[in-house]
Amino acid sequence: MRGIAYGVGVGPGDPELMTLKAVKLIRENDVIALPGREPKETVAYRIAAAVVPELADKELVPVYMPMVKDRALIDLEHRKAAKLIEDYLDQGKNVVYLTLGDSTVYCTFSYIQHHLEADGYASALVPGITSFCAAASRLNVPLCEWDEQLHIVPAVHRLDKVLNEPGNYVLMKSASQMAAVKRMLRDSGRDVMMVENCSMADEKVYHSVDEIPDDAGYFSLIIAKERHD
Amino acid sequence: MRGIAYGVGVGPGDPELMTLKAVKLIRENDVIALPGREPKETVAYRIAAAVVPELADKELVPVYMPMVKDRALIDLEHRKAAKLIEDYLDQGKNVVYLTLGDSTVYCTFSYIQHHLEADGYASALVPGITSFCAAASRLNVPLCEWDEQLHIVPAVHRLDKVLNEPGNYVLMKSASQMAAVKRMLRDSGRDVMMVENCSMADEKVYHSVDEIPDDAGYFSLIIAKERHD
Repeated sequence: MRGIAYGVGVGPGDPELMTLKAVKLIRENDVIALPGREPKETVAYRIAAAVVPELADKELVPVYMPMVKDRALIDLEHRKAAKLIEDYLDQGKNVVYLTLGDSTVYCTFSYIQHHLEADGYASALVPGITSFCAAASRLNVPLCEWDEQLHIVPAVHRLDKVLNEPGNYVLMKSASQMAAVKRMLRDSGRDVMMVENCSMADEKVYHSVDEIPDDAGYFSLIIAKERHD
Repeated sequence: MRGIAYGVGVGPGDPELMTLKAVKLIRENDVIALPGREPKETVAYRIAAAVVPELADKELVPVYMPMVKDRALIDLEHRKAAKLIEDYLDQGKNVVYLTLGDSTVYCTFSYIQHHLEADGYASALVPGITSFCAAASRLNVPLCEWDEQLHIVPAVHRLDKVLNEPGNYVLMKSASQMAAVKRMLRDSGRDVMMVENCSMADEKVYHSVDEIPDDAGYFSLIIAKERHD
């Protein structure tokens, strides 16, 4: 019988934010896939190994998907990743793919999963703590209350197209154009907070647009909240 | 020294979706607040007690906040809840307030936390698995991929104001006007899925608008995704 491919979120960085289910799946399975060329150097590995040290002795499968712009090339990489996993599934082994944060929100496993499904393989998802819930917790503020909508924006492509709706915004991966994003945030009249490298050792917290540096890192997450006063 | 009030998400229902941190905080503290008149009858209690059975012998504080419309009356109830918790904090005890799902997304603790802060008490949040991540996992689909935005809408008040933005939508608590919501979803041309009572014993899954009953329950969560073909 074929194995099942699990996409498992390990949360934002703090090993204690892993779920019991993630820990159990890692303990009970022998093949663990990790997103990167060197499994033991991935962030997901470091998070999981802090709780399950025996992870070091399991079969660690590197799933390297280079960041390229060409969609045909990306698709080819995803196919290769799917085939790599399918080889284990064909041997009757489950594959536990570990991913930073949650497995349903901008997760690399999703791209592989589409191919697995097209090829007739079984897969399942185990949710993890999202980066935006972790960032709000770190800032000690709610993301949304009452009837506030919450908008998650993965990367700001069209600056004129965001912050226009009522409700609160989460801006992810805006670092590459931070100066422009900061102008837009200032114009929006919203309360702005940012966490860089949330729940990692080099975490930094900002409580206003003015505090945010133009050269903030890739793992910067901005929360922009409507003012009600 | 005063204690700290923790707002702790216990996830959507499956006890295995609790975080290690939530379990640890429940184990290590003696005063546990639960949102309801009868602590042991709350959903949050049942989830936590499945993993930490000794919860039954701890000091369980019922924090009952009736669902009323009058904002002044609601505020009065939140103040009363805050005072109840502050009495324990003044005795140097921490209070762990357990909440279904996550503690930063439409969480009752947020309202209490505002009062605690105004009164000068320390509080902290521990994130949990959100209902929408759990629902997507259950449906085995990503909530968002690539550069798709994700919009969380707590309850549909103005039907003409939602589903108009690019990206994917999560509609929560739409049950009270489901017939109208279904019409709107059908008109939107989106792929629609719904999970009722996600990860509970009476969970139900729907894969199209037509399958969704007009009398769906309060804990119904709809995912409406853009079509890209």
